[in-house]
Amino acid sequence: MDSRKVGVLGGGQLGRMLIESANRLNIQVNILDAAGAPAKQISAHDSHIDGSFKDGEAVRQLAKSCDVVTVEIEHVDTHMLEEISSDVTVEPHWKTLRIIKDKFAQKEYLKGHGVDVAESVDLEGKSEEEFKDVGRKFGYPFMLKSKTEAYDGRGNFVVKREEDVGGARKLFGERPLYAERWADFRMEVAVMVVKTRDGVLTFPTVETVHEDSICKLTYAPPRKVTRETAGKAQELAKKAIAAFEGKGVFGVEMFLLKDETLLVNEIAPRPHNSGHYTIEACPLSQYDAHLRAILDLPIPESGLRLREPAIMLNILGGRAPDSHVKIARQALESPNASIHLYGKGDARPGRKMGHIIVTAPTLSAAEREVQPLIDAVDNQKGKPLGPRETEEKREEPLVAVIMGSDSDLPVLRPCFQILEKLEIPFTTRITSAHRTPDWLREFSKKAGETSVRVIIGAAGGAAHLPGMCASWTTLPVIGVPVKATHLDGVDSLYSMTQMPRGEPVATVGINNSTNAALLAVRILGATDLEVRERLRVWMEGNEKEVLWKDGELLEKGWESYLKMMGK
Amino acid sequence: MDSRKVGVLGGGQLGRMLIESANRLNIQVNILDAAGAPAKQISAHDSHIDGSFKDGEAVRQLAKSCDVVTVEIEHVDTHMLEEISSDVTVEPHWKTLRIIKDKFAQKEYLKGHGVDVAESVDLEGKSEEEFKDVGRKFGYPFMLKSKTEAYDGRGNFVVKREEDVGGARKLFGERPLYAERWADFRMEVAVMVVKTRDGVLTFPTVETVHEDSICKLTYAPPRKVTRETAGKAQELAKKAIAAFEGKGVFGVEMFLLKDETLLVNEIAPRPHNSGHYTIEACPLSQYDAHLRAILDLPIPESGLRLREPAIMLNILGGRAPDSHVKIARQALESPNASIHLYGKGDARPGRKMGHIIVTAPTLSAAEREVQPLIDAVDNQKGKPLGPRETEEKREEPLVAVIMGSDSDLPVLRPCFQILEKLEIPFTTRITSAHRTPDWLREFSKKAGETSVRVIIGAAGGAAHLPGMCASWTTLPVIGVPVKATHLDGVDSLYSMTQMPRGEPVATVGINNSTNAALLAVRILGATDLEVRERLRVWMEGNEKEVLWKDGELLEKGWESYLKMMGK
Repeated sequence: MDSRKVGVLGGGQLGRMLIESANRLNIQVNILDAAGAPAKQISAHDSHIDGSFKDGEAVRQLAKSCDVVTVEIEHVDTHMLEEISSDVTVEPHWKTLRIIKDKFAQKEYLKGHGVDVAESVDLEGKSEEEFKDVGRKFGYPFMLKSKTEAYDGRGNFVVKREEDVGGARKLFGERPLYAERWADFRMEVAVMVVKTRDGVLTFPTVETVHEDSICKLTYAPPRKVTRETAGKAQELAKKAIAAFEGKGVFGVEMFLLKDETLLVNEIAPRPHNSGHYTIEACPLSQYDAHLRAILDLPIPESGLRLREPAIMLNILGGRAPDSHVKIARQALESPNASIHLYGKGDARPGRKMGHIIVTAPTLSAAEREVQPLIDAVDNQKGKPLGPRETEEKREEPLVAVIMGSDSDLPVLRPCFQILEKLEIPFTTRITSAHRTPDWLREFSKKAGETSVRVIIGAAGGAAHLPGMCASWTTLPVIGVPVKATHLDGVDSLYSMTQMPRGEPVATVGINNSTNAALLAVRILGATDLEVRERLRVWMEGNEKEVLWKDGELLEKGWESYLKMMGK
Repeated sequence: MDSRKVGVLGGGQLGRMLIESANRLNIQVNILDAAGAPAKQISAHDSHIDGSFKDGEAVRQLAKSCDVVTVEIEHVDTHMLEEISSDVTVEPHWKTLRIIKDKFAQKEYLKGHGVDVAESVDLEGKSEEEFKDVGRKFGYPFMLKSKTEAYDGRGNFVVKREEDVGGARKLFGERPLYAERWADFRMEVAVMVVKTRDGVLTFPTVETVHEDSICKLTYAPPRKVTRETAGKAQELAKKAIAAFEGKGVFGVEMFLLKDETLLVNEIAPRPHNSGHYTIEACPLSQYDAHLRAILDLPIPESGLRLREPAIMLNILGGRAPDSHVKIARQALESPNASIHLYGKGDARPGRKMGHIIVTAPTLSAAEREVQPLIDAVDNQKGKPLGPRETEEKREEPLVAVIMGSDSDLPVLRPCFQILEKLEIPFTTRITSAHRTPDWLREFSKKAGETSVRVIIGAAGGAAHLPGMCASWTTLPVIGVPVKATHLDGVDSLYSMTQMPRGEPVATVGINNSTNAALLAVRILGATDLEVRERLRVWMEGNEKEVLWKDGELLEKGWESYLKMMGK
């Protein structure tokens, strides 16, 4: 495929997964790391270098053995990279690595390029009083962070009150520090960005969940984030990475605040934990993309799409030496779980030993499947059993049932019963076309960005509800004409069916909310074969019931049958 | 994960992909094959054995180094495996390998277990006259096949007429032969079967396309095969493999005859070319499954589902030494293509050098994407340019528009125009509920097994068409009431909306086939965001048109506007 050789500083799990990609393209990768490092285990040739990526001589030797040098970690000697870059291509650029490895310099650089970041103050060499000034400026709590050698939460400290300042300073010793204003985020999100010779591309936005400052879970797509916000996160990530020199993938971690604004938290100039899901969930993985970007090979943008929703769960070392093995073994029972173990030696608590990816046709299905594995992880950590956050969560609705007035509710009861029977999650809202036109407009315009795939609207009289809703959404809208005091519901029936060319309402019979529910199920079943099968079984039950009645009528005769009916 | 070690006889591409799976579970695999074999390249440890898997001493050495021995090829010395099986587990069982490696014995064995296979006659040691007897019995052409060492078409010969018998005998020399009746198949299909300690599971059915007797393409799911037939193929494959001893994955290749009957053609007791697609397209790949089966690790059945339709294209060595590299390079441009190169040395023509998997939300989309790569392969082989089979093919329809009579056709014109404008492939059929009730029943019952996801039914008068259709399918059915001579179409409108509880018809306005088409588009767009986006753009165009008209009316005044309208 390509005779060029790639050299990597570091051979942990990120280097290993990069080699998985390289192996499939028959591209040779030379690793500089200790003998037997995870990446070396799956690459049998004699051009790897045993040693530390912090050793200048070893780095020079690596540079001689290959055409492009890249990194799996940013805590490298960038002066060494600067030196070798006259002989070999270094990607991303050593300047980029130098800026990013100092987290304070990284933030200042981003700010200078108009990228929104949390407010921060340099505290290197500052006195205790100056530290306290920050507390007065930012309020408590604020974050105290080490500028360098900080990752997986190491080097971060939350200063909760002024009395803690002294202790915090001691904790960090001589390390260069800075302070950051507390970001009151409702969620953390991340985007993997690909910088190529030709431009900047992004993978989808994911939600990241941290525990003890280590990434625990990622959700792709993020839960409870509109498509608009997810798109904004991609744009912000793109803007941040466009500011740097060089090629390759970059992880951009962001805070999503309660007011929906986004701030860049941290950048990783390499493949990142929050992009592991791409191996199974996207046609091209972050590792494929990194390899192609640094070698100027093509990266078709739509290869970065999400094939199926995916959840990543990290497997960390636990209290027992085989805690992580137990989690992996349990994952073997999970039909949609792809297991990645990194071939690391001893399992220290918190050490990343592997990860699991669960993909499924819907995020809810993936959540259901991953939950027992999260429980197993939590139980190992000795978290108290009992109600968990996730147990309280309701499934994201696929159907929204809206009605013009609560007086329509009794007509909708059979609709709700069918949806429950056929296990379709739904939500119910009151949105009058005439009394709350703005709310109906807002609801209809946003519906397409939520999990909802079908809308059922019930209304009587002029019954404009489903028609107006259809005018503001591209989702299919089903109309249930409700029989009101006059005209027997024919008024509503006509109002719904006789929509102008352009905005159809799928109208069912007067008061027949059963059929509205069943139509919604058929629409979902058009692409979801599991739903379709549930419907088939239900219809078969109906068929059997009628056939049974026919048998009874034949056997008992019409007279006793009528008697049985009490008529 | 598991401290047991697996030994493999053979380290080509199948062994290599098995190691990809094993690497992720940190399971050690020891390969017996020449130094630098493809599988060894991605597995760096010193317990591999350099040598031939036909060398008894090397096999004994491999057995000593591991807990379970398996094969990536069936042409092994089964007596050697019988010998080592007293010390080490051999999977699948050596008896199974002994039967399968002799293709005639394989067929006799299957026949003995009630599995349908092509009729065959033993010709080992038979005279030329006895060969000709077969021709008289089977008719010409018939297949002459070598019992052993036959794969990728090597060892097969088509005897077209009696005069060819002598030449064919000479061609094969001393090899043991048998004859097989010509199977006049319409298609070849294959199923990967997993035999575990507990039972027999199957991956989905795929279509296989051979060229020069070598597998060229696989399609998952198969094209133009009903779900029923695909299910029967899985059952037949299951039955075939249940007859053998031992564990692991097996490839079952079958002929699908023109009358829809299935015959087993050949079995491979190992991962198989027709199962490569599972790496990308299924949660568990055939390699994951093989490894888990021989180690008695769990295999949840739904992990064998198809995540997305997938097409596999083999990359063979071509006329130039770098022909295969050119194909792989072109595949880099293809957004949904996963490329697998096997790390083999010289590219002899026809040698399997790698493969490409294209997955997409629909098989049609995957076909569109893979076509340029098939063209590139064909051009390399010097196939004449010009119209190709695939260029004539129409896309599989997503919408079926049915009408009670051709008199409904004019009403449906706007429906067809909208579907074409929004690029929704559709089919049109005449199916009268009253004049062709059986045909309507057959159509409706089978629709769910085709590519169709929504049905539009137009009818006038009693207008039973969509309602009856809805009673026989679980797909969503849209009804267009057509205005007939009497009652202004209200008759049909009522007939469609007022369906009994249980079988809804999504009814649109009288004669408003535009809205029926748009509703179908909305239904498809509920899950297909690309379709939804096309609809959004189209609706935006409508909005702009009305806003433009409003501007004109404001500017020109109502009098000249009316004049402009010619009214």
